Amino acid sequence: MGPPARRAPSGTASPARSCSSSDASLYTAWYKAPHGDPDGLREAVYGMPELHRKAIAGASLVASPGCYPMGAVIAIAPLLKSGWGSTAGIVIDGKSGVTGAGAQGRATDPMYLYTEANENVQAYGLASHRHTPEIEQELSALAGGPVVVSFTPHLVPLNRGLFTTASVPLTRTRTTGELVGLYREVYAGEPFVRVLDEGQRPATRAVVGSNFCDVTVVADRRAGRAVCVSALDNLGKGGSANGVQNLNIMMGWDERTGLEAPPVYP
Amino acid sequence: MGPPARRAPSGTASPARSCSSSDASLYTAWYKAPHGDPDGLREAVYGMPELHRKAIAGASLVASPGCYPMGAVIAIAPLLKSGWGSTAGIVIDGKSGVTGAGAQGRATDPMYLYTEANENVQAYGLASHRHTPEIEQELSALAGGPVVVSFTPHLVPLNRGLFTTASVPLTRTRTTGELVGLYREVYAGEPFVRVLDEGQRPATRAVVGSNFCDVTVVADRRAGRAVCVSALDNLGKGGSANGVQNLNIMMGWDERTGLEAPPVYP
Amino acid sequence: MGPPARRAPSGTASPARSCSSSDASLYTAWYKAPHGDPDGLREAVYGMPELHRKAIAGASLVASPGCYPMGAVIAIAPLLKSGWGSTAGIVIDGKSGVTGAGAQGRATDPMYLYTEANENVQAYGLASHRHTPEIEQELSALAGGPVVVSFTPHLVPLNRGLFTTASVPLTRTRTTGELVGLYREVYAGEPFVRVLDEGQRPATRAVVGSNFCDVTVVADRRAGRAVCVSALDNLGKGGSANGVQNLNIMMGWDERTGLEAPPVYP
Amino acid sequence: MGPPARRAPSGTASPARSCSSSDASLYTAWYKAPHGDPDGLREAVYGMPELHRKAIAGASLVASPGCYPMGAVIAIAPLLKSGWGSTAGIVIDGKSGVTGAGAQGRATDPMYLYTEANENVQAYGLASHRHTPEIEQELSALAGGPVVVSFTPHLVPLNRGLFTTASVPLTRTRTTGELVGLYREVYAGEPFVRVLDEGQRPATRAVVGSNFCDVTVVADRRAGRAVCVSALDNLGKGGSANGVQNLNIMMGWDERTGLEAPPVYP
Repeated sequence: MGPPARRAPSGTASPARSCSSSDASLYTAWYKAPHGDPDGLREAVYGMPELHRKAIAGASLVASPGCYPMGAVIAIAPLLKSGWGSTAGIVIDGKSGVTGAGAQGRATDPMYLYTEANENVQAYGLASHRHTPEIEQELSALAGGPVVVSFTPHLVPLNRGLFTTASVPLTRTRTTGELVGLYREVYAGEPFVRVLDEGQRPATRAVVGSNFCDVTVVADRRAGRAVCVSALDNLGKGGSANGVQNLNIMMGWDERTGLEAPPVYP
Repeated sequence: MGPPARRAPSGTASPARSCSSSDASLYTAWYKAPHGDPDGLREAVYGMPELHRKAIAGASLVASPGCYPMGAVIAIAPLLKSGWGSTAGIVIDGKSGVTGAGAQGRATDPMYLYTEANENVQAYGLASHRHTPEIEQELSALAGGPVVVSFTPHLVPLNRGLFTTASVPLTRTRTTGELVGLYREVYAGEPFVRVLDEGQRPATRAVVGSNFCDVTVVADRRAGRAVCVSALDNLGKGGSANGVQNLNIMMGWDERTGLEAPPVYP
Repeated sequence: MGPPARRAPSGTASPARSCSSSDASLYTAWYKAPHGDPDGLREAVYGMPELHRKAIAGASLVASPGCYPMGAVIAIAPLLKSGWGSTAGIVIDGKSGVTGAGAQGRATDPMYLYTEANENVQAYGLASHRHTPEIEQELSALAGGPVVVSFTPHLVPLNRGLFTTASVPLTRTRTTGELVGLYREVYAGEPFVRVLDEGQRPATRAVVGSNFCDVTVVADRRAGRAVCVSALDNLGKGGSANGVQNLNIMMGWDERTGLEAPPVYP
Repeated sequence: MGPPARRAPSGTASPARSCSSSDASLYTAWYKAPHGDPDGLREAVYGMPELHRKAIAGASLVASPGCYPMGAVIAIAPLLKSGWGSTAGIVIDGKSGVTGAGAQGRATDPMYLYTEANENVQAYGLASHRHTPEIEQELSALAGGPVVVSFTPHLVPLNRGLFTTASVPLTRTRTTGELVGLYREVYAGEPFVRVLDEGQRPATRAVVGSNFCDVTVVADRRAGRAVCVSALDNLGKGGSANGVQNLNIMMGWDERTGLEAPPVYP
């Protein structure tokens, strides 16, 4: 939830380089500090295999996504890629377990003490969380135009787990069946994205210790929106396990190498 | 989170009777069963003192709000009452502790077992939760016209606590300072609503065991929205303590009688 | 769980002054530092109303018991006072919630971070916890001779709550009924000690937010021992609420003043 | 924590058949029901590889140990095998996560609901838990004479994890170094028992998701006792993972087959 060691890519051409070259200034605006490696920023490929597999395979520098962007972009991507979702009015609500803060953050901010985080839910970074531009960068690239989101992160009492709930206006009425069909198509062949059946509920427990990201999408006809939810382990698909997946792709290895341990449940 | 023993009021005239007389059919549509007391439904006053104090004082039958509606309506009401918030595009994300399910629900659905609920976050009732029309009834009355919301409830690993995050489009640009000022004005004199200072974060822990509801509002200029968050104890302001507050009003007693125990923290 | 601000009393005469004047050296041996106020140490009365009510009433300086000693001594006292329990072979197992560490301890030792304490049980201070001599001081005074205990403290994932399980050899065979009868007699009239019925289980939840200490005792005929268990809120009867009880006694006020808020359950 | 599907073995000769043929009646005494398969009871080998590896290798029926006996016997065995520990005065305190109850138990007893188990510690089965004779059977076989223990199980708020704290009188004074040396010798070559260094604390988190059992032993010179603590995952070394280890031994496979997934931490 803090600043990633190395942030998202820039560039203009490839689908993996979705932001303008003003990225370094964007970084400064959100992180309140100049980027430490503007050259790397230009070169790096955004490490989300589901969107940028080819670019990752040819990259020498891959930027690890934040856990919130990973959960949000996987949940929303099919809607913007297909044009079924509107680029305006997207609201994203993220809930992160405490390991999302990173070891350093946990040691220095009292909000990560057991007695503060336990039996507690709180929002933070209201309208100002630094993962916001990273989410918008990827969604904008998918939509082919600027996307601005309303994003609110929360700290929930879990060790591991990141749950994302997104509400996306639909450009025309869709049934839940159509939406699930779209997601199945977009994520067909993805080894670590599981699009659940209608009626199944993603739950962070179901992915703890693994590289899976579970996704569900439901049509809210009354509101003219799709509700998209995803669950992942912020240290798994939202963290180091996804990094291993990127490494596998970069090296030309089987993408699942070292990532087949099942989730630990319960 | 299950069906309240007695649901929201109907009526057309008073501000406390905000729904049309079709309420009984609305009940049937969401609860999948006919209302057990349509006469009571017509007579009952909606038990949210912050909106209906006068009507409650003169009522012989008061309907206890659901915990989600309590959290959502307190968080959003000032925006719709003032016309600062738009009636379209409202997205509400609710996070409830496990006592929200009621004792009966907890005993019959495995999702409330410790091993299932612990270290887990999940969404449920996607685009179909029965508290939705209750929220819309109150917001519509405040706005003077129909409000449809996108509402998603979640189960989070807490015994007590209900956290609401609402994203409301603004009809014109406002600063956080203006929004906080509006909330302070609307809730001035309310003994149990605490509008926090800019930068303070509501947290469920801060209200556990009490009848308080803590609220924060922030302007998201980029998205043209207000982010409104509230925290309450679902067994307190979202449950029996609020019922005691209603009783005090009905009986003409000091509204705070029996409700002054401070929160238990941590 | 850390060092109390002011430690246990010394003295030789009154039942509340149960240790020899070598106490200051005993303090040094366990706390690895000289006592900061040896005069106060000689004068202070040990603040356990159930044992030292009279001395507290006349005291100008009262030492607040540690939470482990409070739980252990209440659980065991009747057996040693009556001579039913042996002074040798006593084993005490304490389980403390994380607030037991105090705010300062929690901020400086990583073991109190959420991610370390959550979903974790661990023992610490094996054969060396500084509350050991405080327990022995009180038990020795009750037994009229030296008592040495085997005490092991544990950190369990709770905000509040201290659970003590003691196994005490019996000097002759007793039934559970006899033991419960003894405890009822010893604690008759105590406003904050609740001796549970046979078959009832103490649980930390049942006392959270209150000054109660719940106690159960069972005969283990096969082992020739009594199993004595107690549950209290380490910030309640094991902390500040007990301090208020002492204050009430010192001031001659009703002992329950300010302490009648019921536990928060669940 | 409930009755195992099939309980401990009987027999007279082999070290793995440590109980007298009266076992079936012992079963009845503790489980309050006749054993369903007395022939199997006579034939079965007790499935603790650390004690009965050879007998398991030749067995056609292996009895899976309960999680409490697994934790207690691993913690204490070296002391009784070596004669360093006394057979009298042993006190065992077990703390189990909620999965210890088994899926069926969790669904039928309210004590396993989230709202009851969360933020709660309680003891149960005081002086009567059915795992007691299973512990005594193995310790008696090691000691070459009857061992009676005082055993108290607890339910602690964890999904997985079983922590055992045993206090064992020593037959003569030993240092912590000597004790650790003994444990290292007894468990040398064991792939899943890790004897920690002096000063290291076992913690359930360190073994979750694995077949490891971590052990520490400390001398309490004042009390003339050893404090022995062990931590395991009740679904791992205390459950199905240990069953896989037994299967591997029975089949002549590498004992670690399928058991090398590391713990999930944090």
